[in-house]
Amino acid sequence: MVHSKPQPLQNSKVLIFGAGNFGSCLASHLGDSQHDVFMWAREQSLVNYFNEHHRNLFYLKDHIFPSNITAVGPELPNKEFLNQMDVLLFAIPTQFLRANLSILHPQIDVDNLPLMIFVNKGIEIGTHALTLEIITDTCGPDIAKAATFISGPSFAKEIVDRQPTSVSVASFTEEEADKASALFHQPHFRCYTGGDPIGIELSGALKNVYAIASGMSDGLGYKNNTRAMIITRGLAEMTCIGTAYGASPLTFLGLSGVGDLFLTCSSSNSRNYTVGYRLGRGESLDDIMNTLGSVAEGVSTTKGVKKIIDELGINAPIANAVYDVLYNSKDTQDAVRELMELPPSRELELPPTAGGPARQLLRKLGL
Amino acid sequence: MVHSKPQPLQNSKVLIFGAGNFGSCLASHLGDSQHDVFMWAREQSLVNYFNEHHRNLFYLKDHIFPSNITAVGPELPNKEFLNQMDVLLFAIPTQFLRANLSILHPQIDVDNLPLMIFVNKGIEIGTHALTLEIITDTCGPDIAKAATFISGPSFAKEIVDRQPTSVSVASFTEEEADKASALFHQPHFRCYTGGDPIGIELSGALKNVYAIASGMSDGLGYKNNTRAMIITRGLAEMTCIGTAYGASPLTFLGLSGVGDLFLTCSSSNSRNYTVGYRLGRGESLDDIMNTLGSVAEGVSTTKGVKKIIDELGINAPIANAVYDVLYNSKDTQDAVRELMELPPSRELELPPTAGGPARQLLRKLGL
Repeated sequence: MVHSKPQPLQNSKVLIFGAGNFGSCLASHLGDSQHDVFMWAREQSLVNYFNEHHRNLFYLKDHIFPSNITAVGPELPNKEFLNQMDVLLFAIPTQFLRANLSILHPQIDVDNLPLMIFVNKGIEIGTHALTLEIITDTCGPDIAKAATFISGPSFAKEIVDRQPTSVSVASFTEEEADKASALFHQPHFRCYTGGDPIGIELSGALKNVYAIASGMSDGLGYKNNTRAMIITRGLAEMTCIGTAYGASPLTFLGLSGVGDLFLTCSSSNSRNYTVGYRLGRGESLDDIMNTLGSVAEGVSTTKGVKKIIDELGINAPIANAVYDVLYNSKDTQDAVRELMELPPSRELELPPTAGGPARQLLRKLGL
Repeated sequence: MVHSKPQPLQNSKVLIFGAGNFGSCLASHLGDSQHDVFMWAREQSLVNYFNEHHRNLFYLKDHIFPSNITAVGPELPNKEFLNQMDVLLFAIPTQFLRANLSILHPQIDVDNLPLMIFVNKGIEIGTHALTLEIITDTCGPDIAKAATFISGPSFAKEIVDRQPTSVSVASFTEEEADKASALFHQPHFRCYTGGDPIGIELSGALKNVYAIASGMSDGLGYKNNTRAMIITRGLAEMTCIGTAYGASPLTFLGLSGVGDLFLTCSSSNSRNYTVGYRLGRGESLDDIMNTLGSVAEGVSTTKGVKKIIDELGINAPIANAVYDVLYNSKDTQDAVRELMELPPSRELELPPTAGGPARQLLRKLGL
């Protein structure tokens, strides 16, 4: 059993791991909301520059951050520091999470557990684990059950500009989700709570695969009807995969599902959309990856998703087409033609044998 | 009991009622698919011009229609003509459907019933009836049970340009939906079948209300995060209204729900979006309606929806805000500010007392 720390109503002490695009925009939002924010970065240069100029050396470069944010690092904070925190927020890439949590876990006081919030997306390469499983493996099931996940349609640049934004906040432990909502909620940053962290995680990862497909369609010159078809049929595939995995199909109707899918599939601000668009225009994946300047998570996620759909026996033609274009040198034009030539079908047939992987994960969690 | 006519595998004789934007693009698609198409119009000038030039005088003016389409009218076709048809397709505005069906019904041979397809959207002013109820009232429950509904993200201009498009095809009678799918399905016009015509109808009507909201947000200058929020929270409202009404929440995940919502909310080609956009820019509704040049169905649908949400006791703040802006002279900026200031909430709470209006309608249908 863990015991959660009581949360202050305001002026929470928040430590954010990761100073990338999303981590630093959340730091800005929480600083803006009068919390005491510490942002850990693994680059000494970023830490020094941030504390001197209140600007991030690499991301959101035009933005001046609130002065109540302190950058820390590059060493991970020590036990004493961690125990002063009310909230630990993880905004580091999924691929680095296991290593960092393994180091941090022994330092965390489980009798006085800070609110643990995770905003990373994606599936761990190799293990195909969701973040929830990485937390269970490294920190044990009790901390995983209390972990809270935030996801939704939220471009970082618009958050720091205080453009009205909304997110899903989900945890198996409803009161932890409520605490995270209370921490973040502002008129310009609305939080909607729910109890399906598996669905939130899956939709956050899967949507990037369909953003690649949507970009591809636009790059090939198809118009609005076609994009709407790809987004909607992509959503049907996401919902089938999620349901077979053990998530609630209705989670995919929410901000982390439809909302983020819509945002990611319809804006050239999205890296995954851009990869697809350039593929559709005829560029090679190597050329795109060499010149993109930042990681497009969908490219590696597609590999994990392919494994999951094959194991679960899900009919997911769009995800398969994206996989073939990325990893089997399939021509984008051929991939789209084959999708169009599929026979007519029923609109949504949710798989009857739902819940295999989630059942295993829930067993691991003791739920 | 009605007996459905066996459908030919090809060269169906199709009579389309209505020569507007959507009716004529479907005529073009079906003509293109080698069916024998008749298109009824209530304007003699349109009938004459169409048959001479294979062009529509008022809609899709640049498009040359296939030569196997014949315009008929302005009188409604007689019994003998109707009985030669394999398919009757209704593409006339919802507000004129009751009157036309009342005249046509006595002429239709129920022992040899053609496939009855409806593509109109919206709620009847005054009665707040869905099309399904109008059909029941005018043609009896047996024809209503066999009626098939088509809806989805499909701009007419893109259909005639053979841009890949997809639609939902739904009927209480699965084999009628399959027949409609077989009639329409082509690689560039994909049909997905389902059994929730009430959900298809409601989503087709409701989405126009949220398209107004989305346009308003864009007109006020808000960005991508905000539009994604309005679309997603709008979808949550649509799903709540639909579930309370008696539709399946999962229908709203489909092409007629999310798909059409996404299309309508993100393109200046949509009349409803345009009404909202111009309201957001500060124009008055009267000025907009006087200069729009065509009907924006969402404006009248909002009135019907307001009645439905009040009767069902649904929490639908966005629909209420649109109603207040349209009919209570509320300032758009104030409406958005009040939406943002609502307290945090759970993401999706489907109403427990689901199905009232649909139960009544199903009883009327003998289902």
